[in-house]
Amino acid sequence: MSIETRKADHIRINLEEDVQFPQLTTGLERFRFVHQALPELDLDEVDLHVEVFGRRLSAPILVSSMTGGTPEAGRINRVLAQAAQARGLAMGLGSQRAGLEQANTAETFRVRDVAPGLFLFANLGAIQLNYGYTVEHCRRAVEMVEADALILHLNPLQEVLQAEGDTRWRGLLRQIEAVCRALPVPVVAKEVGWGISAQTARRLIDAGIRAIDVAGAGGTSWSQVEMHRAPTERLRRLAASFADWGIPTADSLLAVRQVRAEMGREDVALFASGGIRSGQDIAKCVALGADLVGLASPFLKRAVESVEAVIEEMEILETEMRIAMFCSGAANIAALRQPGVLVQQPEGEKL
Amino acid sequence: MSIETRKADHIRINLEEDVQFPQLTTGLERFRFVHQALPELDLDEVDLHVEVFGRRLSAPILVSSMTGGTPEAGRINRVLAQAAQARGLAMGLGSQRAGLEQANTAETFRVRDVAPGLFLFANLGAIQLNYGYTVEHCRRAVEMVEADALILHLNPLQEVLQAEGDTRWRGLLRQIEAVCRALPVPVVAKEVGWGISAQTARRLIDAGIRAIDVAGAGGTSWSQVEMHRAPTERLRRLAASFADWGIPTADSLLAVRQVRAEMGREDVALFASGGIRSGQDIAKCVALGADLVGLASPFLKRAVESVEAVIEEMEILETEMRIAMFCSGAANIAALRQPGVLVQQPEGEKL
Amino acid sequence: MSIETRKADHIRINLEEDVQFPQLTTGLERFRFVHQALPELDLDEVDLHVEVFGRRLSAPILVSSMTGGTPEAGRINRVLAQAAQARGLAMGLGSQRAGLEQANTAETFRVRDVAPGLFLFANLGAIQLNYGYTVEHCRRAVEMVEADALILHLNPLQEVLQAEGDTRWRGLLRQIEAVCRALPVPVVAKEVGWGISAQTARRLIDAGIRAIDVAGAGGTSWSQVEMHRAPTERLRRLAASFADWGIPTADSLLAVRQVRAEMGREDVALFASGGIRSGQDIAKCVALGADLVGLASPFLKRAVESVEAVIEEMEILETEMRIAMFCSGAANIAALRQPGVLVQQPEGEKL
Amino acid sequence: MSIETRKADHIRINLEEDVQFPQLTTGLERFRFVHQALPELDLDEVDLHVEVFGRRLSAPILVSSMTGGTPEAGRINRVLAQAAQARGLAMGLGSQRAGLEQANTAETFRVRDVAPGLFLFANLGAIQLNYGYTVEHCRRAVEMVEADALILHLNPLQEVLQAEGDTRWRGLLRQIEAVCRALPVPVVAKEVGWGISAQTARRLIDAGIRAIDVAGAGGTSWSQVEMHRAPTERLRRLAASFADWGIPTADSLLAVRQVRAEMGREDVALFASGGIRSGQDIAKCVALGADLVGLASPFLKRAVESVEAVIEEMEILETEMRIAMFCSGAANIAALRQPGVLVQQPEGEKL
Ligand SMILES: Cc1cc2nc3c(=O)[nH]c(=O)nc-3n(C[C@H](O)[C@H](O)[C@H](O)COP(=O)(O)O)c2cc1C
Ligand SMILES: Cc1cc2nc3c(=O)[nH]c(=O)nc-3n(C[C@H](O)[C@H](O)[C@H](O)COP(=O)(O)O)c2cc1C
Ligand SMILES: Cc1cc2nc3c(=O)[nH]c(=O)nc-3n(C[C@H](O)[C@H](O)[C@H](O)COP(=O)(O)O)c2cc1C
Ligand SMILES: Cc1cc2nc3c(=O)[nH]c(=O)nc-3n(C[C@H](O)[C@H](O)[C@H](O)COP(=O)(O)O)c2cc1C
Repeated sequence: MSIETRKADHIRINLEEDVQFPQLTTGLERFRFVHQALPELDLDEVDLHVEVFGRRLSAPILVSSMTGGTPEAGRINRVLAQAAQARGLAMGLGSQRAGLEQANTAETFRVRDVAPGLFLFANLGAIQLNYGYTVEHCRRAVEMVEADALILHLNPLQEVLQAEGDTRWRGLLRQIEAVCRALPVPVVAKEVGWGISAQTARRLIDAGIRAIDVAGAGGTSWSQVEMHRAPTERLRRLAASFADWGIPTADSLLAVRQVRAEMGREDVALFASGGIRSGQDIAKCVALGADLVGLASPFLKRAVESVEAVIEEMEILETEMRIAMFCSGAANIAALRQPGVLVQQPEGEKL
Repeated sequence: MSIETRKADHIRINLEEDVQFPQLTTGLERFRFVHQALPELDLDEVDLHVEVFGRRLSAPILVSSMTGGTPEAGRINRVLAQAAQARGLAMGLGSQRAGLEQANTAETFRVRDVAPGLFLFANLGAIQLNYGYTVEHCRRAVEMVEADALILHLNPLQEVLQAEGDTRWRGLLRQIEAVCRALPVPVVAKEVGWGISAQTARRLIDAGIRAIDVAGAGGTSWSQVEMHRAPTERLRRLAASFADWGIPTADSLLAVRQVRAEMGREDVALFASGGIRSGQDIAKCVALGADLVGLASPFLKRAVESVEAVIEEMEILETEMRIAMFCSGAANIAALRQPGVLVQQPEGEKL
Repeated sequence: MSIETRKADHIRINLEEDVQFPQLTTGLERFRFVHQALPELDLDEVDLHVEVFGRRLSAPILVSSMTGGTPEAGRINRVLAQAAQARGLAMGLGSQRAGLEQANTAETFRVRDVAPGLFLFANLGAIQLNYGYTVEHCRRAVEMVEADALILHLNPLQEVLQAEGDTRWRGLLRQIEAVCRALPVPVVAKEVGWGISAQTARRLIDAGIRAIDVAGAGGTSWSQVEMHRAPTERLRRLAASFADWGIPTADSLLAVRQVRAEMGREDVALFASGGIRSGQDIAKCVALGADLVGLASPFLKRAVESVEAVIEEMEILETEMRIAMFCSGAANIAALRQPGVLVQQPEGEKL
Repeated sequence: MSIETRKADHIRINLEEDVQFPQLTTGLERFRFVHQALPELDLDEVDLHVEVFGRRLSAPILVSSMTGGTPEAGRINRVLAQAAQARGLAMGLGSQRAGLEQANTAETFRVRDVAPGLFLFANLGAIQLNYGYTVEHCRRAVEMVEADALILHLNPLQEVLQAEGDTRWRGLLRQIEAVCRALPVPVVAKEVGWGISAQTARRLIDAGIRAIDVAGAGGTSWSQVEMHRAPTERLRRLAASFADWGIPTADSLLAVRQVRAEMGREDVALFASGGIRSGQDIAKCVALGADLVGLASPFLKRAVESVEAVIEEMEILETEMRIAMFCSGAANIAALRQPGVLVQQPEGEKL
């Protein structure tokens, strides 16, 4: 099966089927903001801006890596890029393997002409480094799209659930280390929906990764997606039996944050994604330590409509985040992270 | 949109739609009274009376601030006032901004002729003090209705969910302080259904507030109300996404009580409201420290019937409260607050 | 309303309506027996017998106090008595107030001719001692039925939910004390389905009570029963609002057991009832400290069929109890109470 | 009722009715693997092999003891044996009492001709040792089928729920001890679905048992099975009332593991079964300490189809187990048991 067909399948299934985790949730519902009836600030002065890798974003929102490789994917990328540029947000492209291996698809990843100032992440599956890819491929992926940084995604479960997935993962860490050392732009590691554990975070930080996107469980479930396109009944059943695998986004976020603290490496940035569905979710992730918060499927659904639809989605998310901060008395991101702003429920106070 | 239209909307929506919190509860269900099979007291001697601001009430029940500004609202206020007067309870009027700004609506707030002895609270939105209102307006609101005290309500979330809400909240605390200092009657601060946090309580007490009404989450949800009258789809979605925001009434009550104790300011009175629906609920709030317990929507529903209907509602609430106290062996409010009378569930006793 | 009509109502409602607690459970479901795959005993040697007040019973099962005062009630009493006599169990009669006040109904309580060896409890509402009843009435109640002991039931909530209930409970404890001192037979105190608290147990033991039947919440709910016969809508609503009041049977049992231990008064017997529905429930109560375990409504349902039906019910309960003991490796009542036989769930073992 | 009829009933009911525990679960759902996005190993190198009693198995999977004694049972045994032989797994035969008592049914247990290399467990009900069976019968059971070991199953609850079950269990432990001492092959003790407690495990280890199969609650419920074949309404009700009896598989596993450690007897092997339904379940049991993990009803369902169907089931279970290990970064069984690989949920991390 060609990469194009797979990419087209992914978009179609994500738009048409319910591919959320059946049971597992992000864990964010365990946390709630403490309402401040007297916020002592003006809604307008709530400042959502963040700095990531020295660049200023209007809000800590990332359009998570999704697509490329087919004409439709190309259109989606340009829509997303224009919206993100308009709102001053960041964006990740989908895996650029197609672009590297079939030169004629490269343009479906390019968005710089419509989004010159956009903070843009290139994207490659890390596992390709065990299958012949080198630092050079990574460099070309970045250059192909004039990206500001490179995301390497880690997806071992997705690979083993695919008919001809890449399942040789030994030694991959050393390859990632080499890329981190050689590339002129920051390298980010992310999962695709099953989360990053404390152990994995430790390894990645040691390897020189500049940011970790936990991409945890609770949102789009790739075993559900693979189940819908499984060629055999046996693969379908396998995929189904891992439907609720993974580390919930909130758990992963807390685990990685703690590892980072233990290692004294607060310079490594922390991104959260996986099941983020509202501005309150975004604010919670930021309060829990995220520098950037990514959404994939919610933006995909609006991208097939129009640039305006994506912009509207972004504005709503920002407004929800702004309101959550306002009613928590937090004027900016630093204030949002103060102790006592977000608490775990139930508070369970004994008489 | 005029204040009158908004007020009429509020009453209509509260009567016709389900505007309770979708998920969040008051938290009172976590507590239960310990049944005393041998109460050693007579039902008749159970004494519900309380003293608030030096005034004696037959029971710690408050008709929470609701309305005014339209002819129907005027009728409702007079019905509520007559019933509260008849039962020896307290009552709050709805926000008197309309009455101050359109002199001809002032009479819809006046109830003294039918309720000369009623303990009556005037009401204004505190945020108006950031939009031109002064101590003078507060004084006039009190005088307009011959009130015994003034309630300033704090509703930041409601304001931001409204089309043209007042969202400049910085500096408000100083204004409240000025009102507390200047006004001859006690000033009370209340929320409208999202609760008062420990931090906010501390600020309010420092500002000179004489009582705090937590008006917590779990009953009438104003984001649900605003959702029903949102002029745009976007505002509707925003309101919906804050449907379960807020501090549950029981949590807020415990938090404010603790702040008061820490500050050594037991002289500040504590009111509870938000989702109170039975005499057992009232008794629980009192056991948890409340001096006065308010209900809004349950009284509204009976007020559109008749004075008798409201009186019946009050009698049932009082009887339920009396029975709860009797079966707990508590002859009066002080006894109700003894340790061991109300306990948190589950007791979870390990063998 | 005459006592007869009330008694007939009670039976009818208990047979026809669902009058179990809507939400509250006995709490026994929190406990489970530890299965012993190698019990090292024969099923036949499992010995259920107990001694209560120096009398031997084949099993710790009590037909809880229910009825009397009407011809049908008389038939039910005789059916229950014959079955209890046949199985060597104990039985309580319903409140004998009718029998005392209308001499012609006394015979509906008499069962000695058909059950000469039965351990039989007379029954009176303790509150009558505050309304003119004296030690003499108690003595006559015992003699009327040739009882081995007297149960005084405590039902403050039931009284306040009735149209003309007896609500003067002050001073009752002193009256109970007088009865305990004067009566030649043991005096037992019981609730009717809302449980005995630690405080009440302490008072009762001090007053000279020889046994406490917790009659806790989780089974037949008397507020539900009273709701079904409430003459006014207001009384109906009151009863409904106390539908889940009370101390669950297991909680009450543990509380009273602890008080007894603290007072060094293990000589006071402990009975459990309220929501007992199987031999496993009975075994759990015994493991938690009960000397005798009562069931009311399950026996009532079979008593309207025949003596054989009640005997069958008793045999099934005994067999279930025997199996639970056998599979727990407990050969007798003392073994059933050893630590480790019954445990609280979930065990929640952390890796 | 003949043993044959009972055996035929068991198979029919297990295939046609829902005989899983109504409420109780295995407890395995409380545990989850920590996903490793960077497993640093190849899927192919994940090694499932274990050694049990000095014999190497390709994976820690056991076809649990099920059947024999009727022609259909004979067919099922041969199908299961061929599949287990093909995949290098272990298998238990059903109780061989029929084979010992009616010589003509012995062949329905024999599978050595089609499975010469299979690790095979003979099976007898331990309770028969209290009803005339001796070491000699055990020896004959092993020889009849050329088994590598003997399983003695403990099923006190099943016996008491049967019309004419064997209920004299006193003294059985000494008989088991004699068998362990005399038999040339290892002797294993197992339950049939209600679990082994810490106390029972201690006794069995002292008696010389070489392995314990917890066969806990949460899968096939034998009280449900007996309910479906109960000859009387009373037996049916008894069986129903024990539908949720037993120690969940995970709880039993942890309890026995701890006893083994306390006794310093890690040489005693630990088997898990009861409600195992996926390769993830198998991996969890191994992580919790099991050397071998058994499934009964899932294999029965495929055995009535064909050898290939059973093999497919085994392959799927192995693949699921392999994937769970791969995504947990565990290359082999020893790695799977390292701390931090499997964790208990919820992690419940407090801010
Ligand atoms: C259609 C689609 C395609 C995706 N493709 C990629 C990809 O190529 N590279 C990648 O790193 N993640 C990819 N992802 C994963 C997302 O970046 C994200 O981690 C995951 O979907 C969880 O986010 P969500 O719950 O907001 O959808 C894709 C997600 C979707 C929905
Ligand atoms: C129709 C309606 C109008 C209200 N208007 C006011 C108001 O003008 N001022 C105010 O302080 N609170 C107002 N409230 C809020 C109530 O006082 C109360 O805090 C809240 O509704 C929670 O109580 P409940 O759950 O018993 O309804 C209003 C409530 C209702 C139902
Ligand atoms: C029909 C009926 C009548 C009862 N009458 C009495 C009574 O006269 N005196 C008394 O002490 N308890 C009486 N009870 C209460 C029971 O003794 C028992 O405490 C209660 O019903 C809880 O048990 P159960 O859940 O097994 O029904 C009565 C119960 C029933 C069902
Ligand atoms: C049809 C059937 C017959 C069984 N017969 C036996 C038996 O003869 N001996 C035995 O030790 N266990 C027997 N068992 C119990 C199983 O070995 C196992 O302990 C139990 O079924 C739990 O496993 P499961 O949930 O995977 O079915 C039988 C199970 C089934 C389903």
